Parts: sequence; structure tokens; C-alpha cells
Amino acid sequence: MLEPDAYQTDAFIIRSSEIDLTGRLALPSLVSLLQEAANLNAGRLGFSIADLSVYGLGWVLMRLKINILHWPGDGDTLRIASFPTHRDKYFISRDYHGFDQTGRAVVQASSTWLTFSTESRTMSQLPELMQAVTLPDLSYLPKLPPKLRFSGEPIYTDTCRVRRHHVDHNRHTNNSAYVQMLFDALPPHLDEPHELAELDLFFKTETFLNDVLRAETVATEQPDQFWHRLSRPADGKDIVIARSGWRLHDEG
Amino acid sequence: MLEPDAYQTDAFIIRSSEIDLTGRLALPSLVSLLQEAANLNAGRLGFSIADLSVYGLGWVLMRLKINILHWPGDGDTLRIASFPTHRDKYFISRDYHGFDQTGRAVVQASSTWLTFSTESRTMSQLPELMQAVTLPDLSYLPKLPPKLRFSGEPIYTDTCRVRRHHVDHNRHTNNSAYVQMLFDALPPHLDEPHELAELDLFFKTETFLNDVLRAETVATEQPDQFWHRLSRPADGKDIVIARSGWRLHDEG
Repeated sequence: MLEPDAYQTDAFIIRSSEIDLTGRLALPSLVSLLQEAANLNAGRLGFSIADLSVYGLGWVLMRLKINILHWPGDGDTLRIASFPTHRDKYFISRDYHGFDQTGRAVVQASSTWLTFSTESRTMSQLPELMQAVTLPDLSYLPKLPPKLRFSGEPIYTDTCRVRRHHVDHNRHTNNSAYVQMLFDALPPHLDEPHELAELDLFFKTETFLNDVLRAETVATEQPDQFWHRLSRPADGKDIVIARSGWRLHDEG
Repeated sequence: MLEPDAYQTDAFIIRSSEIDLTGRLALPSLVSLLQEAANLNAGRLGFSIADLSVYGLGWVLMRLKINILHWPGDGDTLRIASFPTHRDKYFISRDYHGFDQTGRAVVQASSTWLTFSTESRTMSQLPELMQAVTLPDLSYLPKLPPKLRFSGEPIYTDTCRVRRHHVDHNRHTNNSAYVQMLFDALPPHLDEPHELAELDLFFKTETFLNDVLRAETVATEQPDQFWHRLSRPADGKDIVIARSGWRLHDEG
């Protein structure tokens, strides 16, 4: 396990507005904080969104797997170390290690990103400025398999529309909004007395303002494991596939 | 105008996830940051939500008027000074002065709060620990009139449901979510090339998880002024009334 001082961290003090109905840091807020830490680290390494836009490129999150060891609460500090790990011609991976104010590890996550042409919206090779970055000499979390697949009938569903506050400056739905939408279709009361222990996300297709999306939750043979799907009925495309793992809430 | 060092401030670095489709700090995020600054100041003065809960009391925002002089963008720092101003038997007022990283005033806001019994959900007198607080010796923004009233037919409407991520630990909808819902019913393209200059909000009734709400925008005789209403069709209650003022976006 990474030590809290092994790599530069960005510190976020959890705000009351980031607490959800369970009293813990809201999952969409955690996803936003991980993404913010990624942005900040990429900026320090010279491949921020602004750096890439000079070349007509953008980067986008394809896979994200989060393990929550201890959920932060209101007023806690979450210090996140985030750094690139693996890299090939098209994909770059990034790990996250989150610590609380006492230095205890509370969150671990790994992710896979790709770059795309902002004009043609098609995938591109990683540009030289990303190929040139030195990967830190630290232990990395396991590489994520590229895909997630499941079959099964939903036990809960919900429908939602992509709204103003779900989209970024490019009118693309942000990843935090997807997590909100997926978790609107949670089985009621699943999250009390249970809490989310891990979430594995595969972001497949981009969506835009006013798209109508359908969220589904699918049970598995394990009572503490679920599949989730967000799809766009208008064209039948899968938008996000996810798998969640839950545990009984431990007050400690 | 208050000087940036006239009173203690809390600093917030604007995150990419807080930027909306216009490229500016999202209005719901601004409302959250003002509320966070209020919470932090109340805590330092001894009447935080936790302090009041010992007496079976809570405080709730009834009125909020925001003037945005310059919209913060991604990576900007917003330093907020917030302090109580006027106070009587039932109501306490609070001002906010927001500054950017250069010390320039960017946001001013005033607000009115009341306390209520968390058990009976009825309004209570301000408790002694709030009556005892010394109000700072600073110039205050004008007191807000208690009510907002308008009539007129909506030019745009929208319907939404109170979802998991709209509610706080008590399953009450948070004020930031109300602002999201109100602005889902904005006339399309109003906010480009225009930008919000002021917003006056009256929070009338609380709502809960899964309530269905209707948002309306009503035009006025001024092309840059609108009324907004959020209501609950199930019981016909008004939830939020608001008035917005807009200006042409100034790149400076």
C-alpha cells in the first residue's frame, strides 16, 4: 500500500454539500474529486486538457475502478495522490490513492484513459507529450481489463434526462452525472445498513444535453454484488456498464 | 464595499467539475459554496448545525439574494467572507462577500435564516446561543424583504423528481438542487451570450426524496428579468420563488 508521503497529493476538505443521504461523502462527489486530482496531476506533468487542446486533442475516461476502504464524512480531509502508471500506443492508466487527515488509506482507484480528436470525435494515438512523461517509480494497482460484460434482467429501473447541470463546457455529460443516474436505480434501502465497497465502471459512449437515458440495476448470484447499465433507448446504445460490491456498514 | 481582509475568509479553488456548459462556475456550485462558507462561519461562532442539534434545533435558509459581479472560472480561487448581520426574535441575516485570487470583489450576497424544531418541523425562536453572538462591526448589505410575489403565465416549464443526490442526510432537498431544478426551465440559449447578474430566492416549503416538482420561468416586461417558480403539483404548494436578472456577457 502506498505511503501518504510517497507522491504529491492534492487535499480536499469534504463539504457539507458533498454529503449524501447516508451521511457519507456522496459517490458522485468522490468521482469528481478523483477526476479533479487527475486533472491537477496531468497539469503538473504537462498534459492538462488545455495542453492537449493546442493539438486538437482531448482525453476521456474509459474505465474506473474504485475501492472504498473507509468512507470520508463531512469535514474530513481527503488527500489524493494520482499518477500515470501503464501506457501503450492508445491507452494510459492512472492510479489514485486517497488518505484521510490521519494518513489512513481510505480510497484506492485505478483508471484507463484515451485521447481523441476534438474535431472528429474519434480516438487518436497518445500524443508525444503523453508518451514522453516519466512514469513514477512506485507500485501500481493491477491493470484493469478493458471491458465489462454481463447479462440479466433488471430488478430496478429509472429514466432520466441529461440536464444543464449534468454537462460540461462541451455539452457532454460528465462522469459524475453518470454515477448519479446509475445510482438513481439502486434497490431501495440497499445503502442502509450496507455501504458501497467497490465500483467498477466502463464508460462506453458519450451523451449530450437533453438525451434521455435509462438506468437499470441487475442482481447477481451474490446478494452484495450488482450490475448496472445506463443506456440510451433512442439508439439502443449502452452508455455506461458498471458492477458494484457492497458490505455491511461498519461504524468504525 | 468590504475589503478582502476585513473579515476571516474561507478559500475555495474552483474545480473543473464545478464548471457548467457556459464555462463559468455553475450556479448550483456557487450556492453550495456560499452555504459552505455560512456553515464554517457558524461553526466558528458556536452555532453550527451540530451545536444546534444538541437543542433539537436546526437552521434553514429562507431568503438568498446573490449579485455576481464577475463569474469565477476553472482554477480561480473564491475567498468568501460570511458573517451574521441583523437579528431579531425569529430571524437572523447573513452577508457574503466573495473575492477572487487578486482580491477583486466578484460576488455579494445576503440571506435570511430561521431556526426550527427538528422534531416538530415548526419554526422556533432563535436560541440563546444565536442571540448571544456579537455581530461584527462592518457595513452590511441591505436587509432583504421577507417575501417575493409575482403573477404571470410561464413561457417555459419542466418537471423533475427529487432524486437521491438532491437530498441531504435528513432526506430534505438541498438548496443547490432547487437552483438546478429552477434553471432546467430556463429559456434555451438565454445564458449565451447573456450571463446571470443577480438572483433573488425565496425558499418556501421543504420537499423530500421522490417528490415530483414543476419548474416554471415567467417573462417580465424587462427582457433581462425573469420570474421562476418551483412547485409541487401533488399539493399545489410553492416550493421556491425566484427572480433573475441577466446581462450581456462581458469577456473582461
